[in-house]
Amino acid sequence: MSPAAESRAVVLLSGGLDSATTLAMARAQGLVCHALSFDYGQRHRAELAAATAVASALGAAEHRTLRLPVGELGGSALTDTALAVPEPGTPGIPLTYVPARNTIFLACALGWAEVLGAHDIFIGANAVDYSGYPDCRPEFIAAFETLANLATRDGVEGRKFRIHAPLLHLGKAEIIHRGMALGVDYALTSSCYQPADDGQPCGRCDSCRIRAQGFADAGLADPLTRKFTL
Amino acid sequence: MSPAAESRAVVLLSGGLDSATTLAMARAQGLVCHALSFDYGQRHRAELAAATAVASALGAAEHRTLRLPVGELGGSALTDTALAVPEPGTPGIPLTYVPARNTIFLACALGWAEVLGAHDIFIGANAVDYSGYPDCRPEFIAAFETLANLATRDGVEGRKFRIHAPLLHLGKAEIIHRGMALGVDYALTSSCYQPADDGQPCGRCDSCRIRAQGFADAGLADPLTRKFTL
Repeated sequence: MSPAAESRAVVLLSGGLDSATTLAMARAQGLVCHALSFDYGQRHRAELAAATAVASALGAAEHRTLRLPVGELGGSALTDTALAVPEPGTPGIPLTYVPARNTIFLACALGWAEVLGAHDIFIGANAVDYSGYPDCRPEFIAAFETLANLATRDGVEGRKFRIHAPLLHLGKAEIIHRGMALGVDYALTSSCYQPADDGQPCGRCDSCRIRAQGFADAGLADPLTRKFTL
Repeated sequence: MSPAAESRAVVLLSGGLDSATTLAMARAQGLVCHALSFDYGQRHRAELAAATAVASALGAAEHRTLRLPVGELGGSALTDTALAVPEPGTPGIPLTYVPARNTIFLACALGWAEVLGAHDIFIGANAVDYSGYPDCRPEFIAAFETLANLATRDGVEGRKFRIHAPLLHLGKAEIIHRGMALGVDYALTSSCYQPADDGQPCGRCDSCRIRAQGFADAGLADPLTRKFTL
């Protein structure tokens, strides 16, 4: 079901290509968007600056970055610099998986949404061209929506929350086409798991490869200035 | 199902009566307990000191306090000093409800559990003598367990998580009796929503009243030094 126009939504915004496109889609529905980013100790902190730029460019009503030191609990190459970001092609769920990350992010989004009186929560999860994370699958999104409506005052009183993952079944090239049509400036986004200090992507990690393949499949040049080619 | 002895568990520990009893129950099952508290901007910060004392007294292997600034998102009398803690008897879910609190806490516990290789998570949620929060009900706990096993690498690979809420169906007097039998020192715990700077409970809030009624029903004196009587 489409949310009512002019109502509020919370949009999880990492600063990457997918979440930027998701924010553009929510804005295109006429929603007043409250964007939420997390400083969780990720080594790819360039995405936090990207999130701020994207939120502003796409007309978010508000953008907050919540500091969640879940990286201190360890266990992921995305937050622990003692662990190397794996090369693509490693079988199984990669070491860049952050335990329970989307559960934690959606839980915080849910709390903020209830405070704001928003009942639509957007997440750029994608189960096609992705890294194989369990918390990017449709069954996870559906289970979180069920939980949300049991966990909250609004949910039990009949003001139901909806978790929107509009990219869930789209390939990366299709996501890029839709974002371009909505005016997303992908030059502002950051996808790399281990960018250099100046924000330059590494060109080797899973996330860089998936992005490059997406632009290639879309027949478009990635507007992001970068040092690598496919 | 009971967890295997000598395995690890994550126990949410607020420092109150219920979570202290829950930790004692997990320890009594022979579990190596990793206790997790949250500094979320709560006005009743005395409970953080209580949690540290309780974890030590009950032999937790480790106790961590994670700073989560969810209070900055507003919306609760427990985190916003501009809102008064309501008097008991106010109808409906009280203003002390913190949006999505147990969802956020369990999400963090889940992430830490996966890092530790623990698959048993304990929460002192109680649906009998409680404040009517939606995220203290059995259906919420069950939905979170379902989510946990869809959200995580361990869950999808068949190393299932179990969410234990051993107090869920117990009255407060029964909780106190069980805790006393397990050697819980309730003098270390803190229940009040708005304690004085020296940690003295107010004696008026919902939480103080429920605790006092529990000790009265149990026919026991609350060992906590306090200024109030029922």
